[in-house]
Amino acid sequence: MKSKFVRLLMVGLGVIMLGHFRSFGQDSVVVNKIFTHCLEQGKSYERLRYLADSIGNRLSGSANAEKAVKWALKTMRDVGHGSCYLQEVMVPVWVRNDVERLDMITSKGKSKLNIFSLGGSVATRQGGLTAGVVEVKTFEELVKLGRDKVEGKIVFFNAPMKQRFYHTFEAYGDAGKYRWAGAQNAAKYGAVASITRSLTLAMDDNPHTGAMGYVDSIPKIPACAISTMGAEKLSLALAQNPSLRLELEMNCETRPDQLSHNVIAEIRGSEFPDEIIVVGGHLDSWDKGHGAHDDGAGCVQSMEVLNIFKELGLRPKRTIRVVLFMNEENGLRGGKKYAEEAKAKGEKHIAAIESDAGGFTPAGFSSTCVDDAKRVWFRQWKNLFEPYAIFQWDDDGGGADIGPLKDQGALLIGLRPDSQRYFDYHHTDIDTFDKVNRRELHLGAGAIASLAWLLSEYGVSAAK
Amino acid sequence: MKSKFVRLLMVGLGVIMLGHFRSFGQDSVVVNKIFTHCLEQGKSYERLRYLADSIGNRLSGSANAEKAVKWALKTMRDVGHGSCYLQEVMVPVWVRNDVERLDMITSKGKSKLNIFSLGGSVATRQGGLTAGVVEVKTFEELVKLGRDKVEGKIVFFNAPMKQRFYHTFEAYGDAGKYRWAGAQNAAKYGAVASITRSLTLAMDDNPHTGAMGYVDSIPKIPACAISTMGAEKLSLALAQNPSLRLELEMNCETRPDQLSHNVIAEIRGSEFPDEIIVVGGHLDSWDKGHGAHDDGAGCVQSMEVLNIFKELGLRPKRTIRVVLFMNEENGLRGGKKYAEEAKAKGEKHIAAIESDAGGFTPAGFSSTCVDDAKRVWFRQWKNLFEPYAIFQWDDDGGGADIGPLKDQGALLIGLRPDSQRYFDYHHTDIDTFDKVNRRELHLGAGAIASLAWLLSEYGVSAAK
Repeated sequence: MKSKFVRLLMVGLGVIMLGHFRSFGQDSVVVNKIFTHCLEQGKSYERLRYLADSIGNRLSGSANAEKAVKWALKTMRDVGHGSCYLQEVMVPVWVRNDVERLDMITSKGKSKLNIFSLGGSVATRQGGLTAGVVEVKTFEELVKLGRDKVEGKIVFFNAPMKQRFYHTFEAYGDAGKYRWAGAQNAAKYGAVASITRSLTLAMDDNPHTGAMGYVDSIPKIPACAISTMGAEKLSLALAQNPSLRLELEMNCETRPDQLSHNVIAEIRGSEFPDEIIVVGGHLDSWDKGHGAHDDGAGCVQSMEVLNIFKELGLRPKRTIRVVLFMNEENGLRGGKKYAEEAKAKGEKHIAAIESDAGGFTPAGFSSTCVDDAKRVWFRQWKNLFEPYAIFQWDDDGGGADIGPLKDQGALLIGLRPDSQRYFDYHHTDIDTFDKVNRRELHLGAGAIASLAWLLSEYGVSAAK
Repeated sequence: MKSKFVRLLMVGLGVIMLGHFRSFGQDSVVVNKIFTHCLEQGKSYERLRYLADSIGNRLSGSANAEKAVKWALKTMRDVGHGSCYLQEVMVPVWVRNDVERLDMITSKGKSKLNIFSLGGSVATRQGGLTAGVVEVKTFEELVKLGRDKVEGKIVFFNAPMKQRFYHTFEAYGDAGKYRWAGAQNAAKYGAVASITRSLTLAMDDNPHTGAMGYVDSIPKIPACAISTMGAEKLSLALAQNPSLRLELEMNCETRPDQLSHNVIAEIRGSEFPDEIIVVGGHLDSWDKGHGAHDDGAGCVQSMEVLNIFKELGLRPKRTIRVVLFMNEENGLRGGKKYAEEAKAKGEKHIAAIESDAGGFTPAGFSSTCVDDAKRVWFRQWKNLFEPYAIFQWDDDGGGADIGPLKDQGALLIGLRPDSQRYFDYHHTDIDTFDKVNRRELHLGAGAIASLAWLLSEYGVSAAK
């Protein structure tokens, strides 16, 4: 039995050889046709205009989410590949409602700070709560303060996303825990509410919502996010007057689960129809802005794959299945349900590609797989993407919705666009269509369509 | 004497070896410090806010251009490296004035189309001119029409920039001739005016101005650019009614040349002060929008180099000279004057870096040099830039302002940011500060500062 190292080395050498010949062959011609088609005749941009401007935001369980499901089904059916259907999935329903306000009480009166309730949060009591504030930058600081200093107070997690990371998703990963787990950590010490600095690298007055989570054994306290400018203002005010008080009122609520749907369309493979390649994004968004970058972009790019194969007359050897997942933002029920049913039916998913990092200029692919050799194998196509400035291939994972397919051995791939602007818009009022550039969006569609085509031609051979 | 091929091969092999060791050494530490400093504490963004929002556009010869000169001089002096001065240069003065209108005359009355006079154009007579129109997509079509069909008419050059190019500057290069030389070609056949479709890949109602040129032997006719939506509207109207007439009025004018300035600051080299590395952008802009991307971005990035060396305590071995050129847009007088004086003084410019392609995420460097080996040599640093996603190194040239230094043997390098959005804003009313992302801008400053530092440490050794 060869060692893992030797096996990987051999695969690697094979890849270099193959890559060298393939890059000058037919494959580069097809990839070029796909990108050119996207730039010249792509439909993603106009579809996104409709999804974002005419339907708007579409939180799971909302009427808009169901409008989006119907629109996506009809749009994909109209392309005319045949199989197009809905997959039922029960989704959580959280509703922001009409009250969310934070007032700073100073000697001059009340001063409003811009907040968004975090998804999943409980409400305050009607009329709101009034309390003093403790500001911390880390969980460690909170632990040091202890129950003595925290009980009865609002905890203000003022942890900025770190500018120094080149890849902004790393900064998000680093600071994200204060949004998700701020309330549960604060409540351990008797806090009455939690305020998290918005997860963005920009300095502005737009709060960023997003999911938060409770733990059953700890009291549930209201949780919201404050804009970065608001966080700076509050921090400054606290430095001047540590005993200042805040008034917080929110009337959001969680309602019973509701039926919703993943939307699925497929092009059946001509030679190996049982080998499935998923291409997808998530159709739900938060209830703010229009979910243009997150993840309207990923949806229309995935839908475009159907058009590209149709219009260029490409017949995939393996089955390409476009899946628009429901409920990535606050439950991941769509992704879980899809993987569950795939397993129950004994389907063989060889690979899945997700676009859920915005409609910006594509810069790379990130992958994960239980079988390392598959990851190495698919990098043979690296040089085919260099003419389109796609240079970054890393191992940071695929995407949330396709994640549950990992156990089934699929090679999971995430499209990685330039990430500098993503968190300027993410989960805000300003994630709108005007923030999307047509060419950037269409290049992303070209990238995933090209990769889907290569996977459909060659499979993931290292797996054999 | 070795053949050129063998020399290049040896340099190339040396580069591979050196690159391999250097990338893991001190250089990568310094480059990382520079990028981190830019992301965390860069001043480019706030300076650009002032230049764009408070000074505004600054066409050569305008009062605003002189305000920008004073501001840049003071700002660079305040960094405190010592040598900071103005270099006199006479610039052309073209003034748009207050009338530019194009009306389509239909059976329903007049219908306004959005235009900008092109820089350098003559006016129409007062009250405007009225004429029929011929639409062409190429100069070849114009030649085929001949004087019979063109005389007395307005020629409408409706040549869209081609979406299929990945690099938008290639599409600009391809279609740019209709802006620069449309009027002179149309006038050859007796046309009375020329209208060019705006040079952009976006479909909107913003006309794009820019420079045009006359030839002494051909009559000078008025030239303007129409928005892309306007071009589509006019083309459609012409298809329905080929004999429709247009009314065009413009009162722009060229005035006598005027004194202006390049703004220069330098950090004297500690070991080889006579070897000069220029880093620059151009301070002038068109008279529309605020010249935020073109080229406020390049100016503030170049100025930032002074701060980076100061704040990180870097002492360059060779002299780094920041040059903010005047009059790139309609004359290139600043670049020409700078090179002239350098030659007259017998200065030795080993390299020049220009940032004049917008404040977007840096993607690569483009270079040109009379000595090929120098271009190969400086690519040894390629892997130092890969952590910041700078992968594209090509031979497309440096930049307009530094171009005149080519004859003096300097290695000319242009920063190449992601180009997808550049022509959405270029030479329009919407090239404003809000179109610039802080991190993207600061990464560009990091890129040119890092390259300037490497050049100052190692020179361009292949030249010896």
